Amino acid sequence: MPDLLDDLRAALGDAAVLTDPDLLEGHRRDEADLCAAGTPAVVVRPRSTADVVTVIEVAARHRVPVVPQGARTGLAGAANAVDGAVVLSMVAMNEILEVDPVNRIAVVRPGVVNAALAGAVAKHGLRYPPDPGSWESSTIGGNVATNAGGMCCVKYGVTTEYVLGLEVVLGTGEVLRTGRRTAKGVAGYDLTRLFVGSEGTLGVITEITVALRPAAEESLTLVAVFPSTAAAGRAVAEISAGGLTPSLLELLDRTHLAAIEAYQPMGLRTDAEALLLAAADTGPRAAADLARLAEVCTASGADEVYAATDAVEAAALLQARRLAHPAMERFAAQAYPGGNGGLVIDDVAVPRDALAALLDGTARIAVEYDVPIGVVGHAGDGNMHPNIVVDRADPASLERGRRAFDAIMELGLSLGGTCSGEHGIGLLKRDWLAREIGPVGVRVHQAIKDALDPAGLLNPGKVL
Amino acid sequence: MPDLLDDLRAALGDAAVLTDPDLLEGHRRDEADLCAAGTPAVVVRPRSTADVVTVIEVAARHRVPVVPQGARTGLAGAANAVDGAVVLSMVAMNEILEVDPVNRIAVVRPGVVNAALAGAVAKHGLRYPPDPGSWESSTIGGNVATNAGGMCCVKYGVTTEYVLGLEVVLGTGEVLRTGRRTAKGVAGYDLTRLFVGSEGTLGVITEITVALRPAAEESLTLVAVFPSTAAAGRAVAEISAGGLTPSLLELLDRTHLAAIEAYQPMGLRTDAEALLLAAADTGPRAAADLARLAEVCTASGADEVYAATDAVEAAALLQARRLAHPAMERFAAQAYPGGNGGLVIDDVAVPRDALAALLDGTARIAVEYDVPIGVVGHAGDGNMHPNIVVDRADPASLERGRRAFDAIMELGLSLGGTCSGEHGIGLLKRDWLAREIGPVGVRVHQAIKDALDPAGLLNPGKVL
Repeated sequence: MPDLLDDLRAALGDAAVLTDPDLLEGHRRDEADLCAAGTPAVVVRPRSTADVVTVIEVAARHRVPVVPQGARTGLAGAANAVDGAVVLSMVAMNEILEVDPVNRIAVVRPGVVNAALAGAVAKHGLRYPPDPGSWESSTIGGNVATNAGGMCCVKYGVTTEYVLGLEVVLGTGEVLRTGRRTAKGVAGYDLTRLFVGSEGTLGVITEITVALRPAAEESLTLVAVFPSTAAAGRAVAEISAGGLTPSLLELLDRTHLAAIEAYQPMGLRTDAEALLLAAADTGPRAAADLARLAEVCTASGADEVYAATDAVEAAALLQARRLAHPAMERFAAQAYPGGNGGLVIDDVAVPRDALAALLDGTARIAVEYDVPIGVVGHAGDGNMHPNIVVDRADPASLERGRRAFDAIMELGLSLGGTCSGEHGIGLLKRDWLAREIGPVGVRVHQAIKDALDPAGLLNPGKVL
Repeated sequence: MPDLLDDLRAALGDAAVLTDPDLLEGHRRDEADLCAAGTPAVVVRPRSTADVVTVIEVAARHRVPVVPQGARTGLAGAANAVDGAVVLSMVAMNEILEVDPVNRIAVVRPGVVNAALAGAVAKHGLRYPPDPGSWESSTIGGNVATNAGGMCCVKYGVTTEYVLGLEVVLGTGEVLRTGRRTAKGVAGYDLTRLFVGSEGTLGVITEITVALRPAAEESLTLVAVFPSTAAAGRAVAEISAGGLTPSLLELLDRTHLAAIEAYQPMGLRTDAEALLLAAADTGPRAAADLARLAEVCTASGADEVYAATDAVEAAALLQARRLAHPAMERFAAQAYPGGNGGLVIDDVAVPRDALAALLDGTARIAVEYDVPIGVVGHAGDGNMHPNIVVDRADPASLERGRRAFDAIMELGLSLGGTCSGEHGIGLLKRDWLAREIGPVGVRVHQAIKDALDPAGLLNPGKVL
């Protein structure tokens, strides 16, 4: 009987079926820390929906699990391989099939990089809003599978708000089309949004129809410097209560400000406890909107509020925010001997009026568990990333980091929050998902998984 | 053995368990025409989630189907009773549990009337955008179950965009909580949006957390008069292509204009073939936005474009649009002897650039099947309501109406559209849904239905 690899090569040709050990090693995991990862038997790069159907059928015959992957920039281990699995790397299915400016939609294959789509639609005066931190490298398929967020969400929402329709290959090998090309439609169950964020556990996405928006208008940016993270949290609640909807409302704490200045000096106020970065993309009225944001920040206790005087300065502020992640990675690496420091990146969202409590509580957790924790994130949504610095070479430090991570999750849920604002569940947060949704929620998740993937072929062990 | 009614009375008390024949008759159907309706064995009015669980458990024991109902204003028969069923009338569960201006959410029971919620949140400077035609009488539970639309959708989307979380009683009697109170969150499968629009077939909604928005700013309104429906359709495509997003973009055809003027003289141009009603709710820049809309309408062939000079005139124009439905009902009734005329209300959405083709095609269908068809609807979404006038007393007229209805559905799908823009599937469009989503789509719908309601207790025969 031919083995799995023979069958795959016979069906897809040798070039699409990869078994080089270094390449297998490189496809074991995404960017999540603290998550187990197996070694796949093979990496397959399909070029078409028919190829995906073939892979699913061959894998089903051999009872081998299939793990879909995009650019592996995820932060929850959802793309991590299982030992002996077929990794289905979707990166070669990267055609932008259509950009339709009248209907404001684009149709793309899953391997299209977010930045490539953004660029293609910009030529038509349009915009694809979702902008995860990884937007220059992550794929739309991965963004859809994880329901990726970003800085745009405070005004424009997460990925699911922009997915109108999908083509999906199910675990049965059937090709399902969901959704529509129309601006509006309510026919049948919302299968489209069931697949968005399902992390490859219900089907393999092979085509995506996304909604576009007109390009944003002129944007203005301000920075508010706070003497405490809690004051910054209060400002966020007041902004929301005041009926304001900034197009961006980000928070950087003292740890991140220092890390960024060390990584690349930008002239940030490293003596501040927290900085809020806000923008208004409302064109001719952006200045008025920004002035109202500034007023609220001042009234909430900001030491200093200043507006970017031109587009160059505004871009520099945004760039400082975008550097938070690499800067903090370097800060963590250097925090322990031998460059063994690492980051455990958390992701929690709370109601906006609980943001100050989340920030205060996280500071207490850092003290209690004796681990440095920097906080950065999308303050306008109440979505924070507490970044826990650990010494990878020290089991005690790792354990303290793990316990701090759990304490932050616990705090977030106790404040009425959710265990994932935008990074998803994957392997990292299965227990916390179960805690958040309860036994009935878990049972319903499992019932849907069993209904759509009865053989349990697709990305086993993720989400549930 | 006690019968169903004994068990219900023992559990809920006599007052909640209604068997008066007139009342049963009144709970047989919603406002959809051409749909079958049975007679329920009993109407139950639960006052709490625990009551709903009890009803589900009792009904399951007696193997009697349960049909949830709100205000029965639906237009697809989704709330129609099945013979011998328990009708679960949710109207007495009508508490607004919470309005939270900082987090911009409200938590309501399903029986809250849309207008009551709109009023309650307006006091906080907030707005609940979904505004179905029935908003003064329909319930939020019904709006969620049918994923109701309205005039706001061109800018603000349908109901599902505003549902953050649900409490749902499943067919197993389990109470499921979905979603969150946070502005952002991606934890687990999107069960919330799976239940939205599922028309009571997957669970009974007992609590709803909705997202609110700041109240709209000052709104300005214009009317553009067109010598052909196709020209109006072209204007809509050009508005979208030009990057404009009006807060309202409605179309009334000649038939509706005449019907409204006959119903209540408003000074509408009854010699026009089509009228577009547009609004911009962008406050200080509404005038500039309206001027651009006017330009595009003129360039697309409008005979006349005029802006409302004040809020009173704008309100009158909106009122004219809101009268389209009752006016057309009266027009239909009077079109045949004995007041036997009736309306078959259709609902189809096409890509915006196919709107002109839909309007032209509908006019041809009216001629071909020899039935008057007036068209009104949400032009900005490509969502039209072709209203077919039939003589209820004449089987030949009814049959022609039915065939015209099918021809419009066929045309809509052939133009890349969907069989329901906002009214849903219910009983009316099960065959068309199956046609639209194909055999794999139907199988997946059924698998999800079976997974969540294994006994097939909930609203049997709807959607699928």
